[in-house]
Amino acid sequence: MQQGLLIVISGPSGVGKNTIISNLLDKLPNLRYSISATTRNPRPHEVDGQHYYFISEELFLKKIEAMEFLEWAKVYKDYYGTPKDQILKLLEQGIDVILDVDVQGALQIKKAYPEALLIFLAPPSIAELKNRLINRHTEDSSQIETRLRYIETEFQNVPSYDYFVINQEINLTCSKIEGIILAEKCRVSRQEANFLNKIFGNDNNS
Amino acid sequence: MQQGLLIVISGPSGVGKNTIISNLLDKLPNLRYSISATTRNPRPHEVDGQHYYFISEELFLKKIEAMEFLEWAKVYKDYYGTPKDQILKLLEQGIDVILDVDVQGALQIKKAYPEALLIFLAPPSIAELKNRLINRHTEDSSQIETRLRYIETEFQNVPSYDYFVINQEINLTCSKIEGIILAEKCRVSRQEANFLNKIFGNDNNS
Repeated sequence: MQQGLLIVISGPSGVGKNTIISNLLDKLPNLRYSISATTRNPRPHEVDGQHYYFISEELFLKKIEAMEFLEWAKVYKDYYGTPKDQILKLLEQGIDVILDVDVQGALQIKKAYPEALLIFLAPPSIAELKNRLINRHTEDSSQIETRLRYIETEFQNVPSYDYFVINQEINLTCSKIEGIILAEKCRVSRQEANFLNKIFGNDNNS
Repeated sequence: MQQGLLIVISGPSGVGKNTIISNLLDKLPNLRYSISATTRNPRPHEVDGQHYYFISEELFLKKIEAMEFLEWAKVYKDYYGTPKDQILKLLEQGIDVILDVDVQGALQIKKAYPEALLIFLAPPSIAELKNRLINRHTEDSSQIETRLRYIETEFQNVPSYDYFVINQEINLTCSKIEGIILAEKCRVSRQEANFLNKIFGNDNNS
């Protein structure tokens, strides 16, 4: 059986990662979301164990020491990490796993797990991103400025990503990411070496 | 504007390349088929200038000398070639071009034009391929045996391809190739280096 794909989505805060991921999860039965752990405070409507595992800084640091994260990062003042065990089990079962991870974390994952698929989601424009951050009312204006200043650093890392998708329109963006998933499973470099055996094997089965 | 994609489809005779390509052309308005030239005899229902340019061996050899082909190859006793000019013009206009080319030709194209996308289409099994060759009544049994013996050589070249797609079911195969086309246009390695400019540029336009 083909190993599942580990799909890492990064992109500036406010670009629409949550919406895109939840649409993809609705459409693709073989896709699971891996819940991250974080020390930051939950936003209104965010549920522990659904959007994030909200844990204390003390517990987070213990988990780092116990190597329980596939990656972890400190963004602004908060820690974010990706629990390792559950993901590797799903991939072995051929299930695709999608992660929402910051650029630092994405690069750590690519290093630890080179088969990971890195997708950078970009806004159509900075002005639109700023509007979306203002309208979601989850950050004050100084936090928004901090996030916008961070964009340059994020974009400097795009060349390390596999795909760059501008989130112009949700359905189109989802189609592109679905296309990327379908395509990657057909990549010669992701398949076993003996291609002729694959089709001869099917003769024996039938 | 992003350059069009040059998509090369190869695969054993009888695998269904024609059907897949014609379905893709119906669905994708930005896709054009590049008609090959050949010295082989037309099959029943094949139309000159639509399925192939059917030309004499003498003219074919003149065109080789004049470097008018992106690739050419001799398969069995027949010559096949891909006229260069029209393809490069379409790609520059951002139009995607799809070609049906033998493995020798595909590798020549990849060498001359490394951005080309090589897709190998495989049958679900050898038995099914043989049935399809028998049922299309275009080759006699000795020609069919020759084609089947050639499969091993074809498959030895799969590692030089970008994608390996098993043509299990037409619609699924088309979705996979559509996915590949969408995905390739998002690949970081196919895009201009300055990613931040792309979205800042959009602020100036609006």
